[in-house]
Amino acid sequence: MQSVIKTVEWTDEGVVFIDQTKLPTEELYVTCRTYEEVAVAIKDMIVRGAPAIGVAAAMGIALGVRDAKVSTVTELRQVFGAICRTMGETRPTAVNLFWAIRRMQRKFEDLSNMPLAVLKTEMVLEAKRIHLEDIAANQAMGRFGAVLMPSEGGVLTHCNAGALATAGYGTALGVIRAAVESGKNIHVFADETRPFLQGSRLTAWELMKDGIDTTVISDNMAGAMMAQGKIKAVVVGADRIAANGDVANKIGTYTVAVLAKEHGIPFYVAAPWSTIDLETADGSQIPIEQRNPREVTHMAGKQLTPDNVHIENPAFDVTPSRYVTGIITDRGVAKAPYNESLRKLAQIETVSA
Amino acid sequence: MQSVIKTVEWTDEGVVFIDQTKLPTEELYVTCRTYEEVAVAIKDMIVRGAPAIGVAAAMGIALGVRDAKVSTVTELRQVFGAICRTMGETRPTAVNLFWAIRRMQRKFEDLSNMPLAVLKTEMVLEAKRIHLEDIAANQAMGRFGAVLMPSEGGVLTHCNAGALATAGYGTALGVIRAAVESGKNIHVFADETRPFLQGSRLTAWELMKDGIDTTVISDNMAGAMMAQGKIKAVVVGADRIAANGDVANKIGTYTVAVLAKEHGIPFYVAAPWSTIDLETADGSQIPIEQRNPREVTHMAGKQLTPDNVHIENPAFDVTPSRYVTGIITDRGVAKAPYNESLRKLAQIETVSA
Repeated sequence: MQSVIKTVEWTDEGVVFIDQTKLPTEELYVTCRTYEEVAVAIKDMIVRGAPAIGVAAAMGIALGVRDAKVSTVTELRQVFGAICRTMGETRPTAVNLFWAIRRMQRKFEDLSNMPLAVLKTEMVLEAKRIHLEDIAANQAMGRFGAVLMPSEGGVLTHCNAGALATAGYGTALGVIRAAVESGKNIHVFADETRPFLQGSRLTAWELMKDGIDTTVISDNMAGAMMAQGKIKAVVVGADRIAANGDVANKIGTYTVAVLAKEHGIPFYVAAPWSTIDLETADGSQIPIEQRNPREVTHMAGKQLTPDNVHIENPAFDVTPSRYVTGIITDRGVAKAPYNESLRKLAQIETVSA
Repeated sequence: MQSVIKTVEWTDEGVVFIDQTKLPTEELYVTCRTYEEVAVAIKDMIVRGAPAIGVAAAMGIALGVRDAKVSTVTELRQVFGAICRTMGETRPTAVNLFWAIRRMQRKFEDLSNMPLAVLKTEMVLEAKRIHLEDIAANQAMGRFGAVLMPSEGGVLTHCNAGALATAGYGTALGVIRAAVESGKNIHVFADETRPFLQGSRLTAWELMKDGIDTTVISDNMAGAMMAQGKIKAVVVGADRIAANGDVANKIGTYTVAVLAKEHGIPFYVAAPWSTIDLETADGSQIPIEQRNPREVTHMAGKQLTPDNVHIENPAFDVTPSRYVTGIITDRGVAKAPYNESLRKLAQIETVSA
């Protein structure tokens, strides 16, 4: 079951995104014709989800390199530095962004004594390769994770870690898709995920497209659903996973993890290897993006709060690894102690596609 | 500090409510000129909050009795039965509604051999008495609860248990108001409380009016705020409290209670004695109202979910008493074991005003 959703795609005209701010009522595609437009699309969350941000950044860099008006590799190197800086300043938490930039930088260095035209072509190919690898990684996660899902019953997910958050298929939703494909009878509970509503707008939309039974709940209903025995497992994505297994993910993930622990429900995190950041020792060192208060104060142009009230709007929170039953990667499933299990997986070189 | 907010008021023209569906951007008052209009106002949540619903129902009944086109008490008894049935069918969970109806029924029986005009006048006076007693109860709760609040720091509340949920002053917010009046330096964190947004729309609005420092967070941020040490105590209201201390309150309260336990933060419930339902043994027997899915699927006319997705929209959840540090009533503070402590408070006859 290859999802038909085109989250991010390379075309000769530019990088094409489905505009995730318009879903679920409008299915609109936008073409970013410059790397600057790609950076804005990432910042404004037209494309979001850590793996998709990584792919988008790689394509944005490739676009900038391809269209750079330079006549030597030395000139290109200047422009390339500026492109990478612009891309790196879009969003701070998802480590896949920095992973993708570093990978494009390494490729640039590897090829820097090639002719300009070859270098440009190869950079575009590298971005396309990152895109394909991400889909393969999702499918590998699906295979590793499907067996961990209940044979029937409710599975709760938070935010959107689906086809829309990746190059396709999804991380957490990839695990659910693979479980359903293997014959498991799963009903998804999707937290609506305030303030940006990735759950109600995006997760519900893509699961409905695939014919997977889905119930949207507001975030504060998760505890009641668990107490009523409706949830058998939780699976979420991640924006960055530290070396000790602490997980930065969409705000509210930590609340769900605490609830899962209280109810004895397994709590899984699904993420490609590019989300694992072994250079960050623990969650306290992960930078947490603060977003515009307007996401909380307004909806559809309507003001929801009184003037001048204080607002908190962290985009992410950190779930300490002690709440995490397992981290499903494309290299296998890590379990506690994560410092050891993640280091062991780090030695596996290739994505098992 | 008597709040200037007029949640519900008796006037000769009818019962006046501030329209809580329009806040915080419009401060609009509506006059219900018949008991049927009062019933609709309760059902549509123009007035909401368990104690306010009780007062509104009593005033609605008084209005219906006053304006009944009858010439004998026997005829009035017929009409009175119909009025009470209409009022009882508005909302199922808040026990204050049924408490107020029973109290008006008892008054009717006590006075049933009085002349018709006297009976009508006395029923109106009884409704006004319920209104005044509710304010006194709130102030008593404030006195009992203020000492339990931290001398400084963040206090989290969920939904609106304020002046807008009562005849004035508030239950949970009454405790916070009394703590602030006693010189405590409290910063309120208000869960926005999806789907109806009582926290962002109502709690924030009335606290801003009183100059109490307030931060609105989306419900799913509560865990992160606690993990960051920003919350020193939780205080919420209740729609019904069973004999064993289980608390039915706005959906999401249970999630907050689990989070508070995990972080070692005291979790208090403030409610007038009319919210305590000793005839209900435990929380499993409390009927939970399911509301219109549209509250979850749409906001400000905008569709947030794909067509045909399933929706859960329970208005309340039940927090088992083991999560409750104390129940602050107008008769004193009950602590575990609640079966004993609540029964002891039941023996105190009068509201300590």
